[in-house]
Amino acid sequence: MSEVLIIFGSKSDTEKMRGAALALKELEISYSARILSAHRVPEKLEETVAAFEARGGKVIIAGAGLAAHLPGVVASRTCLPVIGVPINGAIGGLDALFSIVQMPKSIPVATVGLDISYNAGLLAAQILSVGNPVLREKLKAARLKIKEKFIAENTEGIDL
Amino acid sequence: MSEVLIIFGSKSDTEKMRGAALALKELEISYSARILSAHRVPEKLEETVAAFEARGGKVIIAGAGLAAHLPGVVASRTCLPVIGVPINGAIGGLDALFSIVQMPKSIPVATVGLDISYNAGLLAAQILSVGNPVLREKLKAARLKIKEKFIAENTEGIDL
Amino acid sequence: MSEVLIIFGSKSDTEKMRGAALALKELEISYSARILSAHRVPEKLEETVAAFEARGGKVIIAGAGLAAHLPGVVASRTCLPVIGVPINGAIGGLDALFSIVQMPKSIPVATVGLDISYNAGLLAAQILSVGNPVLREKLKAARLKIKEKFIAENTEGIDL
Amino acid sequence: MSEVLIIFGSKSDTEKMRGAALALKELEISYSARILSAHRVPEKLEETVAAFEARGGKVIIAGAGLAAHLPGVVASRTCLPVIGVPINGAIGGLDALFSIVQMPKSIPVATVGLDISYNAGLLAAQILSVGNPVLREKLKAARLKIKEKFIAENTEGIDL
Amino acid sequence: MSEVLIIFGSKSDTEKMRGAALALKELEISYSARILSAHRVPEKLEETVAAFEARGGKVIIAGAGLAAHLPGVVASRTCLPVIGVPINGAIGGLDALFSIVQMPKSIPVATVGLDISYNAGLLAAQILSVGNPVLREKLKAARLKIKEKFIAENTEGIDL
Amino acid sequence: MSEVLIIFGSKSDTEKMRGAALALKELEISYSARILSAHRVPEKLEETVAAFEARGGKVIIAGAGLAAHLPGVVASRTCLPVIGVPINGAIGGLDALFSIVQMPKSIPVATVGLDISYNAGLLAAQILSVGNPVLREKLKAARLKIKEKFIAENTEGIDL
Amino acid sequence: MSEVLIIFGSKSDTEKMRGAALALKELEISYSARILSAHRVPEKLEETVAAFEARGGKVIIAGAGLAAHLPGVVASRTCLPVIGVPINGAIGGLDALFSIVQMPKSIPVATVGLDISYNAGLLAAQILSVGNPVLREKLKAARLKIKEKFIAENTEGIDL
Amino acid sequence: MSEVLIIFGSKSDTEKMRGAALALKELEISYSARILSAHRVPEKLEETVAAFEARGGKVIIAGAGLAAHLPGVVASRTCLPVIGVPINGAIGGLDALFSIVQMPKSIPVATVGLDISYNAGLLAAQILSVGNPVLREKLKAARLKIKEKFIAENTEGIDL
Repeated sequence: MSEVLIIFGSKSDTEKMRGAALALKELEISYSARILSAHRVPEKLEETVAAFEARGGKVIIAGAGLAAHLPGVVASRTCLPVIGVPINGAIGGLDALFSIVQMPKSIPVATVGLDISYNAGLLAAQILSVGNPVLREKLKAARLKIKEKFIAENTEGIDL
Repeated sequence: MSEVLIIFGSKSDTEKMRGAALALKELEISYSARILSAHRVPEKLEETVAAFEARGGKVIIAGAGLAAHLPGVVASRTCLPVIGVPINGAIGGLDALFSIVQMPKSIPVATVGLDISYNAGLLAAQILSVGNPVLREKLKAARLKIKEKFIAENTEGIDL
Repeated sequence: MSEVLIIFGSKSDTEKMRGAALALKELEISYSARILSAHRVPEKLEETVAAFEARGGKVIIAGAGLAAHLPGVVASRTCLPVIGVPINGAIGGLDALFSIVQMPKSIPVATVGLDISYNAGLLAAQILSVGNPVLREKLKAARLKIKEKFIAENTEGIDL
Repeated sequence: MSEVLIIFGSKSDTEKMRGAALALKELEISYSARILSAHRVPEKLEETVAAFEARGGKVIIAGAGLAAHLPGVVASRTCLPVIGVPINGAIGGLDALFSIVQMPKSIPVATVGLDISYNAGLLAAQILSVGNPVLREKLKAARLKIKEKFIAENTEGIDL
Repeated sequence: MSEVLIIFGSKSDTEKMRGAALALKELEISYSARILSAHRVPEKLEETVAAFEARGGKVIIAGAGLAAHLPGVVASRTCLPVIGVPINGAIGGLDALFSIVQMPKSIPVATVGLDISYNAGLLAAQILSVGNPVLREKLKAARLKIKEKFIAENTEGIDL
Repeated sequence: MSEVLIIFGSKSDTEKMRGAALALKELEISYSARILSAHRVPEKLEETVAAFEARGGKVIIAGAGLAAHLPGVVASRTCLPVIGVPINGAIGGLDALFSIVQMPKSIPVATVGLDISYNAGLLAAQILSVGNPVLREKLKAARLKIKEKFIAENTEGIDL
Repeated sequence: MSEVLIIFGSKSDTEKMRGAALALKELEISYSARILSAHRVPEKLEETVAAFEARGGKVIIAGAGLAAHLPGVVASRTCLPVIGVPINGAIGGLDALFSIVQMPKSIPVATVGLDISYNAGLLAAQILSVGNPVLREKLKAARLKIKEKFIAENTEGIDL
Repeated sequence: MSEVLIIFGSKSDTEKMRGAALALKELEISYSARILSAHRVPEKLEETVAAFEARGGKVIIAGAGLAAHLPGVVASRTCLPVIGVPINGAIGGLDALFSIVQMPKSIPVATVGLDISYNAGLLAAQILSVGNPVLREKLKAARLKIKEKFIAENTEGIDL
């Protein structure tokens, strides 16, 4: 049984959403991924969300482009934290960004940067770590490793 | 029984949506209006849309601001024509406009201008007139009247 | 005699407008298509619109880019429902989108998403179905088929 | 008989368009002003433009807001120079600006700044001065006067 | 000891941030609030964040306007989930929104809508509920209450 | 001696500015073209503008990208009509468009669409035709030819 | 003799530019202020800049709105550091911001935030401090004072 | 020991930042360059900035994309002048531009154009020249050379 559910609306967004899975794998968090559409299969979406919640699922990541309703529609069907990933398809991605982040009072979506699905995976891990000290330590270790790697790679000045 | 259903998400949008009703009244088209939210009462929204369709309702007008999912969510639950009215609440209304007009393939929303709900009512009438020659003539007469009024008011040059 | 007239301003937009025709073909709705410009051949445009209306035509789809006046100019010459397709040519398509959707009071244009002409065809069908129960059933069947296809293709979780 | 025709679509824009008339008055250029709409009274607009041209009129100034088609529609009906004044009504005026300035190849509109109709009047004068040395001298004198006034008012440093 | 820390950069943002506290109060979640600036008192900010984390704090909400670095800077100093509230001060709030949501890979900020701090409080509660079934039930009850209230207030059609 | 002066700031804009020359050639209007920069060679720019005016030059076309000051700076140094061509180099060309069109009161620049230099040439011709009936007839003939060509190429419906 | 010259294009911007003077006064840096326009009095502007440079002036602050050419034009006439203050007059200030910051290669303008002229004064002081250890210490002291004041005012948590 | 420190957040920005180094080399100004991140290695960043200042460094250039906090965070840690280079990564670079230029009162960042790092190098030189007459002369000579080269390359009209 997975702790995180990753959903997005179209097979063509698969590559852009892979980052979310990657972050979760790195932190050994279980997840499952589904292609689902708020507009084309609304009942299936509701069922999937309800089933995930019923089985003890904890965080949902939803990626979408254009009039990106998927994250908000999911958020309206559950009280689990929902993370939205705006995907750039038109107008520099502003349509997706605004459609996801500008949710009205009472139905929040935790929005990350355009096409940066890795951060959605990482945010899911941070959320899961709230009641999980082992995961918290893993996150701290990962952060430290990023620092060390960054420093190792950039010890010396760069030749510009 | 009404031919047109007008819905919007918040009592605070009432004044901005009144134009839709006005246009319908002028053309003697029956309508009903409901406050409904895609996010707060999704089941109620679905029920209302399904009931409207079942009773022979023909066109739905949906107004919304911010991450304005209401028109799109309605459109995903019916094959009736859905007209979207973006309401300016933030970012000059671009959030609402993009969230309504940028619907993905297969689920169109007929979008009109920011806060111009009168045009949503008129567009509903134009749609209803497709199979209704009497209404078509009324629309032509109304258009003619606008012209005549415009000309009457502006016969002479204006003193600038 | 065709029920829907598709017009756009330049041969170079042909591929972007093909979606409108595709949607109509799928639903067996008759249409004709013309390249016409609001600015270069205004009289021809008026004639064509008037003739289409006189012959019993029912819905007009107009696609345009840049300062996209075509849909609005058509709407000012007829009381038929006019559907506008903004075509992205510059500034992320915002010039076309704003020029089409922001029509003033009394002359609505039913605007769909940037470059998504398929939805214009589908919206035309929804409009025609208002007085046509057979077409309504076809639309419902098409919607159902989309759902079934979507579900069939995405039965299982995706390997992310 | 007037050399410049000023048109705009709505009485509510009168104050914003007064600057155009002011600039022309200052330079003693004859003008007439009309409220006309590309969408509501297209035939009247055409007639007026054709009559102005037939009577020897030389430059047209057209102001409009929202999906501001008026200047472009006028430009498509005449070969006289057409000056467009975008009027800020929504979206910070970007709808009007884009609808006026982004005219396609072969039908230019000479666009000035948002709500700055004075510059439209002045530009009309500059255009008329091309074949009119007396007016050219008046323009130079006016420019000089602006300089002198500016310098006179700002001879000394300002107390900040 | 509080579970949630609310920080923002200027006393003038107090009213806009009150929603975050309100949501937490409604759900009986302990919080503390501090005015802190990423740019003016960076060391104090770090200390406060570190102390909050050391004392077992769980979620941080950070609101900021203009070049809104506060949420991102906090996120770079902790592995706790950080929720960002963009506050509209200029350019329609786009400066704050972009500065908060567009965080680079590895340092996510969970961004909510412009000036909608209530959703930040609610999202914090959703995050805390991941390991807290009692809070989860409270959230569900609150959501249900919103629905019931919405339905009660809008039982009948509205008189438009 | 040329009637129109075309200037732009960088050799790299040559292809984008060629349209201006093309329009003038088609109408047999004399022009000269110079690469000049408002920022790099301000004195040279002034000299060139002054000399062009002294020699009886009539219209100036200036193309520029980024913070496109060239057209405005030229306009501040002459009372001849100045036509500005915004060139898309960054931010979808909005920097150039705003820098050219938003000129303050008293110093107009006649702005055409992004990268559409052909229209600058045509507008120059329209301006020159104000005192030149032969050129006016040429412009009408050219407009007519565009129509005829458009109609000839699009006599029949297009196969969509 | 003043070390800093503050210029801006219109008396109406005086209040918005006062912040620049305030920052300089706080740090006891001499300055003078002039209203000057790149478009209306270009020769006067050049003279003033040249005279300021000749008298040993060191930094120029220029504020402007709309197509805000003033800072860039000044920068093209001197090798002194030029600081630009975009002033919000239209389009949320984006016209002024883009016109100032997007300067082409070789002619930089040091741009600060919209309407935040205080930072222009402070930046001028930072620049002057490069060869002035006493001023550097003053700047550090001022920064420290800001911190201390901030901390003093916000010692305790705020009651939200 | 270098007078200028160039920092940026990612190896992938190296090419875009090379212009800053080029400008400094041309003017024989010593510099060093480091890859450093405000979010990934905040302590390292602070150390580097403090050490640079302690060793007598004078100007810092910081380039960043997305939610570009690097320049502002540096500016909050030093009173040296900080020059920010917004790097276009998404949304046409508006995220980086707004995140850098819209710094709040008291912590200025001297912002240059999108991706135009050469101007950051040149601005650093202008700043250093404030107390360095030899460098001032070099800058004037370089400016003159640009003019002469520009004029030499563009002596004759261009064949358009």
